Amino acid sequence: MTSTALQPSTASTLPAPPTAARILRRCRELAAPALAEAVDGLHPWVAEMAGYALGRCEVGGAPADHSQGKGVRQALAVLGAEAVSGPAEAGVPGAVAVELVHTFSLLHDDIMDGDALRRGRPALWKAYGTGPAVLAGDALFALAVETVALTPHAGPAVRQLTTALGDLVRGQADDLLFADRPWTGPEAVGVGEYETMAERKTGALLGCALAIGARLAGASGGTVTVLDRAGRHLGVAFQIADDVLGIWGDPSVTGKPVHGDLRQGKKTLPVLAALGAPGGSELAALLGSSASLDGEGVRRAAVLVERAGGRTAAVREARRHLTAADTLLAGVPLAPGPAADLRTVLSALADRTI
Amino acid sequence: MTSTALQPSTASTLPAPPTAARILRRCRELAAPALAEAVDGLHPWVAEMAGYALGRCEVGGAPADHSQGKGVRQALAVLGAEAVSGPAEAGVPGAVAVELVHTFSLLHDDIMDGDALRRGRPALWKAYGTGPAVLAGDALFALAVETVALTPHAGPAVRQLTTALGDLVRGQADDLLFADRPWTGPEAVGVGEYETMAERKTGALLGCALAIGARLAGASGGTVTVLDRAGRHLGVAFQIADDVLGIWGDPSVTGKPVHGDLRQGKKTLPVLAALGAPGGSELAALLGSSASLDGEGVRRAAVLVERAGGRTAAVREARRHLTAADTLLAGVPLAPGPAADLRTVLSALADRTI
Repeated sequence: MTSTALQPSTASTLPAPPTAARILRRCRELAAPALAEAVDGLHPWVAEMAGYALGRCEVGGAPADHSQGKGVRQALAVLGAEAVSGPAEAGVPGAVAVELVHTFSLLHDDIMDGDALRRGRPALWKAYGTGPAVLAGDALFALAVETVALTPHAGPAVRQLTTALGDLVRGQADDLLFADRPWTGPEAVGVGEYETMAERKTGALLGCALAIGARLAGASGGTVTVLDRAGRHLGVAFQIADDVLGIWGDPSVTGKPVHGDLRQGKKTLPVLAALGAPGGSELAALLGSSASLDGEGVRRAAVLVERAGGRTAAVREARRHLTAADTLLAGVPLAPGPAADLRTVLSALADRTI
Repeated sequence: MTSTALQPSTASTLPAPPTAARILRRCRELAAPALAEAVDGLHPWVAEMAGYALGRCEVGGAPADHSQGKGVRQALAVLGAEAVSGPAEAGVPGAVAVELVHTFSLLHDDIMDGDALRRGRPALWKAYGTGPAVLAGDALFALAVETVALTPHAGPAVRQLTTALGDLVRGQADDLLFADRPWTGPEAVGVGEYETMAERKTGALLGCALAIGARLAGASGGTVTVLDRAGRHLGVAFQIADDVLGIWGDPSVTGKPVHGDLRQGKKTLPVLAALGAPGGSELAALLGSSASLDGEGVRRAAVLVERAGGRTAAVREARRHLTAADTLLAGVPLAPGPAADLRTVLSALADRTI
């Protein structure tokens, strides 16, 4: 394959570069046995709850095969290992750990946010009770750290994970406190503050996924730091794309109600950017008029956010962070094949086409 | 001091061996700056909640100085380091970590158990809400792992901590499930099963405290394993002593209502041992008669537990585990002074005189 330029006759038979969906599936399948083994080692009751959260079973333990998410974080860990020329397998403990941390954070966040549904099924706390859901989250948290602690490069890899865990908690704290802040005035949430929250809440674990995969493959220093930073930018882009979908996304695709985030009064980037723009005063008046908007108010707010440039600003910010991630990745020596796979996943993720 | 036998005239001026309370205070004071520094680095809101949980402030952040517990776990970490001839300071990150884990587990257990009071004040979830208390627990958990991950012997020390964390969750799961099990019959909770739960829920962190202190001081292999096992036995003894106090303890000393555990229908060792004894049938009939006993029923149950030998069996089991801990410690080469301090703390702890 190193001399295809000299063999034009075979060029047409070369496989097309893998799609993001195929890359994600490859990584998911690689990590699946280790993830299953880790979860199966838990206390039987907790293992059942973890299985429910991962879509592998129903309440009571009957096997199921519900959508388990795309496994973006585990894929980034595997690609991180490959990108520094390590074997994909080296990234697997990192893949398991970040997937467990992601699941833990969803379980606890659903309790904190009072979200009763998760991927079309009752959230774990609704299905098993708040106390058991707290416990299941704790168990996944502990299992994640243990999985990394048992690897050869335990020290730096655990530090990579704990930094992300600390940021995850900080981001969730910021996000919870944002709910009580006013829409306007000196106490209002600014765009910069929002992006810091998004980097912590969403970016830290994506950055950790890439970096821990590389660490576990033996990389150190500059490249690992760059991978972490690139993943953090990706996370902010991803969160902003999520915000745009949360207002204008097609409910049949997102699985969420149209204008859902506006209805809940969530402080998302398109709204904050619109409020900060010259044309944002009518939106500010509308949002400040009552604690929660009715259907007509929500539709009106969506129009006003768009008119004040909030949607455009959000898309621009997402692109800016994605470009920053690309630039960072281009600046370090990565194995070409995995780097290409990584870029494919990154663009698909930021465009939310996967 | 090595030749006191040759200097009888100075014997009367030798200081008395330190009491358990003094040893605990010394260790607490040694670890306090590092513990405060760790907590102060958290997100400000989370730091306030952590401060409240540690008795350092009121809701809103006003400084306070409430009873913060005896700091047994942090003392064991410091003594573990000293016992393997390391400097006390080497054990401090371990001391901070186990104290944070202990606090995290109290925060989450209070949610799971619905306990509204903790050390005479509203439990954190009552004072700040369930969601924030879940978050604060997560933050302390992450901080504990991070504290150990930043030490020179990070790998083995983190593994020591994650093993304990895994057991802690298993023990809490067992304990929650015990509540739904019957008092008698094939599904009843046996004494052996109870002790496994107690070892996980209480013993694992005490064992980890001793062992992590030793690990951080550079010890490895057999001695660390023995310290871990000794701490686990101590934990079971401690939990059983707690059970005895939960039924017959003086409310003015324990701060808990008399017969409190019987009133709540908790499956404690004195009751389980009594039910398994030949004279336990009247107790079984009483406990099986209704979901919760009234004041008269509770008093009667306490008499029946004692008459069937439940109290005696509990004290015997606690002593057996304490002896096992002593025997283990006597079988490894420990620095004499710290080993004596360790024994002082262990006996005081099992006797609940501290």
